[in-house]
Amino acid sequence: MSHQKYRVCIDACQKCANACDHCSTACLQEDNVAMMERCIRLDIDCAALCRFAAAAMARSSEHVSDICQLCAELCEACAAECATHEHDHCVECADACRSCAQACQAMVA
Amino acid sequence: MSHQKYRVCIDACQKCANACDHCSTACLQEDNVAMMERCIRLDIDCAALCRFAAAAMARSSEHVSDICQLCAELCEACAAECATHEHDHCVECADACRSCAQACQAMVA
Amino acid sequence: MSHQKYRVCIDACQKCANACDHCSTACLQEDNVAMMERCIRLDIDCAALCRFAAAAMARSSEHVSDICQLCAELCEACAAECATHEHDHCVECADACRSCAQACQAMVA
Amino acid sequence: MSHQKYRVCIDACQKCANACDHCSTACLQEDNVAMMERCIRLDIDCAALCRFAAAAMARSSEHVSDICQLCAELCEACAAECATHEHDHCVECADACRSCAQACQAMVA
Repeated sequence: MSHQKYRVCIDACQKCANACDHCSTACLQEDNVAMMERCIRLDIDCAALCRFAAAAMARSSEHVSDICQLCAELCEACAAECATHEHDHCVECADACRSCAQACQAMVA
Repeated sequence: MSHQKYRVCIDACQKCANACDHCSTACLQEDNVAMMERCIRLDIDCAALCRFAAAAMARSSEHVSDICQLCAELCEACAAECATHEHDHCVECADACRSCAQACQAMVA
Repeated sequence: MSHQKYRVCIDACQKCANACDHCSTACLQEDNVAMMERCIRLDIDCAALCRFAAAAMARSSEHVSDICQLCAELCEACAAECATHEHDHCVECADACRSCAQACQAMVA
Repeated sequence: MSHQKYRVCIDACQKCANACDHCSTACLQEDNVAMMERCIRLDIDCAALCRFAAAAMARSSEHVSDICQLCAELCEACAAECATHEHDHCVECADACRSCAQACQAMVA
């Protein structure tokens, strides 16, 4: 099936979306929640776009390349923000975002 | 992390969403596409709801149970329709939908 | 067009989704953000489900009734939470959620 | 409220999403459904991205400009395909896609 060539990137997008969605909730429960505003907002954007990108790849959309390019940008922004925090969920989210950005860039290339 | 209890169901939802999204595109390329109308429409509904359910679980939403109950219903309807077709993508989609319905029902119970 | 019978409910869902999405961001910028945790989380759930419901109605999905029933439940929960806060965005969001719940219930009936 | 500056573009995205979602279903019911494959696939992509863009604007996302740029591209592609068909739903969808592309480009500028 043609969508199998997207398998690695779909998995990376879904792992990243889950990490971002979890991070957004966990940030809201931190003592310093006011400091987590940008992290939460980027988490929400990134999670939604990663799920859209996974769906587009599963449908073998003709726009996969442009979608993955935007997804890589949002993942990098979210990774950079998460990396400034020491909460476990932020560290894990930063890792998932970086991996997803790389997988998306490989898809674009 | 609290969202880990949802791991099996999140994975089932994502596998199902990918199978449905792929099936919708593959159905559109079949010779008998007119016969695939309902399959394609249920694929689209089911894929989108499965991705929403996965996101809700990753966020540890307080509405997880109600969402998973609706997801199980749509998965069962999509599985029943896919099972009436012999295309490989329909067979695989029916399997993924049944597995997801079971995982969602286990979450509700 | 058959989707025209859904026009009022689609509009209510989209207005509610926009109010919820806006409220989630505005809550994150309030001084008492820790008190807004549940409001933000319900906003996120409600916005995403309202957009899914609008899409399902625009596609004349056979599952419109079940989807609108769940949407009404989430809207009512979000309205009840928003109504406990005095921020303008919460008051406006509570109104939009109540209107959407009514439109969804009318669709189910 | 800061999201009010996005009002025109949010409305255009939502109108476009509804037109695309409706067109995808209506195409599946046409006699010449095999000829509508690309139209249906672009409708699905465009509808989902327009709803994501509307949500991002309602949240005043910092990535609104990049998201609207991609949205404009998909809208233009969908408008061009729809314009090659004479079905009422395709003509209406092409109009909604063109209007949305213009609104998104104005947002980017």
